[in-house]
Amino acid sequence: MGTEKERNERLGQIEAMLLRYLPAEEGYQKTVCEAMHYSIAAGGKRLRPMLMLETYRLFGGTSAIIEPFAAAIEMIHTYSLVHDDLPAMDDDEYRRGKKTTHAVYGEAIGILTGDALLNYAYETAARAFSMEPGNETIGRAFQMLSQKAGIYGMVGGQTADLEAEGETERSEEKLYFIYQMKTGALLEASMAIGALLAGAGEEEVRTVERAAGEIGLAFQIQDDVLDLTGSFAVLGKPIGSDQKNQKMTYVTLYGLDAAKQKAEELFLSAMQRLDALSVQNPFLTGLLRDLIHREK
Amino acid sequence: MGTEKERNERLGQIEAMLLRYLPAEEGYQKTVCEAMHYSIAAGGKRLRPMLMLETYRLFGGTSAIIEPFAAAIEMIHTYSLVHDDLPAMDDDEYRRGKKTTHAVYGEAIGILTGDALLNYAYETAARAFSMEPGNETIGRAFQMLSQKAGIYGMVGGQTADLEAEGETERSEEKLYFIYQMKTGALLEASMAIGALLAGAGEEEVRTVERAAGEIGLAFQIQDDVLDLTGSFAVLGKPIGSDQKNQKMTYVTLYGLDAAKQKAEELFLSAMQRLDALSVQNPFLTGLLRDLIHREK
Repeated sequence: MGTEKERNERLGQIEAMLLRYLPAEEGYQKTVCEAMHYSIAAGGKRLRPMLMLETYRLFGGTSAIIEPFAAAIEMIHTYSLVHDDLPAMDDDEYRRGKKTTHAVYGEAIGILTGDALLNYAYETAARAFSMEPGNETIGRAFQMLSQKAGIYGMVGGQTADLEAEGETERSEEKLYFIYQMKTGALLEASMAIGALLAGAGEEEVRTVERAAGEIGLAFQIQDDVLDLTGSFAVLGKPIGSDQKNQKMTYVTLYGLDAAKQKAEELFLSAMQRLDALSVQNPFLTGLLRDLIHREK
Repeated sequence: MGTEKERNERLGQIEAMLLRYLPAEEGYQKTVCEAMHYSIAAGGKRLRPMLMLETYRLFGGTSAIIEPFAAAIEMIHTYSLVHDDLPAMDDDEYRRGKKTTHAVYGEAIGILTGDALLNYAYETAARAFSMEPGNETIGRAFQMLSQKAGIYGMVGGQTADLEAEGETERSEEKLYFIYQMKTGALLEASMAIGALLAGAGEEEVRTVERAAGEIGLAFQIQDDVLDLTGSFAVLGKPIGSDQKNQKMTYVTLYGLDAAKQKAEELFLSAMQRLDALSVQNPFLTGLLRDLIHREK
């Protein structure tokens, strides 16, 4: 199957692009630049830039203008992890087997590195204005990016999630809000910005935004399922930690079977939306399929 | 003298504008929205939005397009204070006689509130794209804002300042870097964006940017002078705290008289630059004059 090879190739291109867009590690601000590199290098699936680039391709986009936005969304994702790991937040010393940023550089530089990454995301995306000065969709992409990252997106979800800790009240509405905002919003931004910058119409942008929202929700519910059914060896973390932590999840609300069914329903709905478009990108749909049917 | 009345009037307009641009305090993300309001309400001179609005007036700007940028720069300034006050940074429980954000809302919400304000600054500035879709200077204003706030501006200065703590080596170059980046950069952004959006030419933008840089440096040196000469009653903080903390300042490097002279030189140079422009705004020059000749 060529898919794995293709995916690794594209992942390699994204890694190279991220490096090109990160700042030089020099000057009196060298430490924070090094810590930015360290945080980004901690890696991951690069799901957000990949979704953005593939949605851009889906709608026939071919210019380099997508790159600063693809780099920016990974910087925003990374800043949120750096701040989430801080002692006053989740207090994690390790992420993906590597020391977290504040564990290496200290808490003060950890805070500044998150700030630096968030700001540099906008500084990087703003390069697009010089690349195509007359292109009015850049401003709209900027609005989309900042909205989905902030209080009506990711930061809003983080706030609600933080406050829901230890709450015994069960509310589907709040659970959906947290899932949609904390995870869904950046996926929505990724796909919507890819569509916008490729020149897709308003209806098409809305379609991929909704599909991304469903994928985000399905992804989170699948996370809840794996927390209970995944093996420790595959997952790399203790099974059943949500139950132990009395965390409200889709599984604790509705049970395992209903959760599996809901994730599949959401995935199929997203696929239907994408299938109904006049354009297709099999690589993108394969990527989404594997994401929802993953086992870790 | 009408100046004080005029200044209070304009300050009142800025306060009202900031309130209009802050998010509603509602929804599952209500706490972080409340904390954003609390942080902004802690007040101050609103120097950055005032400089931006007055430079915009200086070059004949009359549209509301300046407002989202003026609100944005105050949000960026405020986020930096919220994060600076955190226990892992300066660990301040009070600022201007009021409890700091993390002291009221806890450290986790303190971190998220800074993140929210920084992100909302860009979300707010991005409103300008809908106000004047074809206006290409908005993209340039965006580049200026993000550059001066980030690692080549304020965050860069914060990093260098943090690392210089307790250093015994004395370097004028590093001191200038810290002063120019930590304080000067946002003042430069304020005046340069005001000029840009009003349609000033490249040379004029550079002139006000340089003047703002000199004002920023003079402001910081004046701060060092006041730390030694100001009375406790006027300053509201212990005198000589820099010496006690072994902090490298312009005064510890060159002495009090040289510092006073340097601040005045920088101020006069900035005034000369502004005087040489074909347009004048006496309110702006009066504001800068009082800023450098302040006694607290």
